[in-house]
Amino acid sequence: MDYKKESLLLHARLKGKIEITPRVSVSNSAELSVAYTPGVAEPCLEIQKDVNLSYLYTRRQNLVAVITDGTAVLGLGDIGPEAGMPVMEGKCVLFKTFGEIDAFPLCLRTKDTDEIVRTISLLAGSFGGINLEDISAPRCFEIEKRLKEICDVPVFHDDQHGTAIIVAAALINALKIVHKEMNNIKVVINGAGAAGLSIADYLLQFGVTDMIVCDRFGIITEGSEDLSDVHKAISKRTNRHLMKGSLQDALVSADVFIGVSGPNCVTKEMISSMNLHSIVFPLANPVSEISRENALEAGAFIVGTGSSQFPNQINNVLAFPGIFRGALDVLASDINNEMMQAASKAIASFIPDNELNQNYIIPFAFNKGVHQAVANAVRNAAISSGVARI
Amino acid sequence: MDYKKESLLLHARLKGKIEITPRVSVSNSAELSVAYTPGVAEPCLEIQKDVNLSYLYTRRQNLVAVITDGTAVLGLGDIGPEAGMPVMEGKCVLFKTFGEIDAFPLCLRTKDTDEIVRTISLLAGSFGGINLEDISAPRCFEIEKRLKEICDVPVFHDDQHGTAIIVAAALINALKIVHKEMNNIKVVINGAGAAGLSIADYLLQFGVTDMIVCDRFGIITEGSEDLSDVHKAISKRTNRHLMKGSLQDALVSADVFIGVSGPNCVTKEMISSMNLHSIVFPLANPVSEISRENALEAGAFIVGTGSSQFPNQINNVLAFPGIFRGALDVLASDINNEMMQAASKAIASFIPDNELNQNYIIPFAFNKGVHQAVANAVRNAAISSGVARI
Repeated sequence: MDYKKESLLLHARLKGKIEITPRVSVSNSAELSVAYTPGVAEPCLEIQKDVNLSYLYTRRQNLVAVITDGTAVLGLGDIGPEAGMPVMEGKCVLFKTFGEIDAFPLCLRTKDTDEIVRTISLLAGSFGGINLEDISAPRCFEIEKRLKEICDVPVFHDDQHGTAIIVAAALINALKIVHKEMNNIKVVINGAGAAGLSIADYLLQFGVTDMIVCDRFGIITEGSEDLSDVHKAISKRTNRHLMKGSLQDALVSADVFIGVSGPNCVTKEMISSMNLHSIVFPLANPVSEISRENALEAGAFIVGTGSSQFPNQINNVLAFPGIFRGALDVLASDINNEMMQAASKAIASFIPDNELNQNYIIPFAFNKGVHQAVANAVRNAAISSGVARI
Repeated sequence: MDYKKESLLLHARLKGKIEITPRVSVSNSAELSVAYTPGVAEPCLEIQKDVNLSYLYTRRQNLVAVITDGTAVLGLGDIGPEAGMPVMEGKCVLFKTFGEIDAFPLCLRTKDTDEIVRTISLLAGSFGGINLEDISAPRCFEIEKRLKEICDVPVFHDDQHGTAIIVAAALINALKIVHKEMNNIKVVINGAGAAGLSIADYLLQFGVTDMIVCDRFGIITEGSEDLSDVHKAISKRTNRHLMKGSLQDALVSADVFIGVSGPNCVTKEMISSMNLHSIVFPLANPVSEISRENALEAGAFIVGTGSSQFPNQINNVLAFPGIFRGALDVLASDINNEMMQAASKAIASFIPDNELNQNYIIPFAFNKGVHQAVANAVRNAAISSGVARI
């Protein structure tokens, strides 16, 4: 049986991948009068006096909302809120399994930016954090930005930042192997949606200076007509030589290729035109920009993909459980750049330098230690950057 | 230690009364590829083709939202959304314990009727049912009415209907004991908020014809000045003799008193002025309209209260778990009057006639059989009234 049939059968048999479980017994009047009426009035009144006590007396302290509008689900696109739910439930399973975080999925029946922002802001008091998921670009940028301004809990769009964090971690280790530095490499990113733009922004923070971002029309160049606002913004921070042309043109003498675009848009010739010791991350799923096999044949030195079938899986699940775990542990009011960079570095340094090799640049997600290492690093960064509340 | 301190300590120790639990293991790549990417794309695509399959492939089939704005929490009033959360979490524990239903609490940071309606309607695709909770009157009436019109899942305001359903069940059995009939009794209800008005409406459906509703200003009379819209509506359906005056005036020669108001507003003299074999339900919590002891001393024949410390506890928990269980079992699109009446009758008839007595008119909530009996009756009523979808 193939995995498609298997997945359908599993989902039908499971009757949902999550459930809500009581943490208290109410099997008699005495128990009920403490956990519910009349006793429950006491924590209510305490929270009324000091709303921060909601973190002490309710599950909010460990609770994250996984929220989508169903517009950019996996590689499937705009499939609608209900159809996005199996992914959101799966994400919640990952939160609990790898981060011991209670995550609850909410799929919104609207694509309107204002309405999404307003709805989530009204719900924020029920959660300790908000994980935005699979919301299409460019709306996702504005939604996250506005929510970060108005919400008193951390807001994190995993498709943007989770991907960037883990790509940076992989790149840190890959560069160690090839003895190159962030400020001395040419990076080409193909795909200028949520993930691509976030990776670009994030690697600039990490010291990359020579970067070209391409979308389906080719190289994004400052001053080009028809650039969207977000593309205009990235054009001012990348492609300093104002290069024009195709992805093929961009890749000549590049050190790093990062693909968050679509299937089979990179040829072996394009990989061969890159610099020696090239680092190639074709991350499109389920079919990547170029197969690992072809990339290696064309001379790529280190290849990382999104697939679990090959070495060097660049997988978001390495980041978000530990990031939210660290944020919740100190009731952080935000997940800021310091915390994200701490996560990247913790993931990278989880592999001792003497164990690094072309086929082992990124830890395995099923190693629970890595999530704890990320949580510790993020918690410390939250404290040192002043967003921890305990 | 008193129950107040005990409750605070319990809540702080518990760190929340509910949690989210995975129903599937993702401890290796093979499991992950079926429960999450890439396999999860299959149920997503199936739901995209037929949105009703969200009930097959996700937890929606068993999932109820418990939603409040924190404006009428217990007897505490408008304490705010975060402060209402301990009650909502407790309610979710009851849903699971007594109805095997996954219920998730959401506290909204708005009191605006339009915004509450819009927010809940946007969330409806994530749930199989909506339980409104502790929203103040009269906003709760409009919110429920509008949501029932626009949502494709059952919407139920427990403070209104849950209370009415269980009061009617208790009254059915009490009337059997005193050999009186619904259409031949005088009923006085004190309290004209969500619960009082819903009880009035519901008992009219059950055949009561002689009914007086009082609020804090006394008897509600058709044609009086300053009546709100909802009070105007109930004035046209009750108090057929256009009686004016106080609660004291109303209670003379009444057969039934139902209090959903406040503490100590009923005297022994008022109870003594009622008819022989009077039925007295002072339900205010934590301090009722008159104590059970005083009511009995004043001549009340059957007394039911909201307290678990006395016989005849009139407790919502007898109704809502079985009602939603029955509704979810057939994916009902509504919880309608037929289903509610079926619930009342199932609760009442759960006690065999030969076991009924003055101190046993209502089943114990901890008897799991009663919840199953309610679920069965509600499921059958959903089918026969045409709102079942499977």
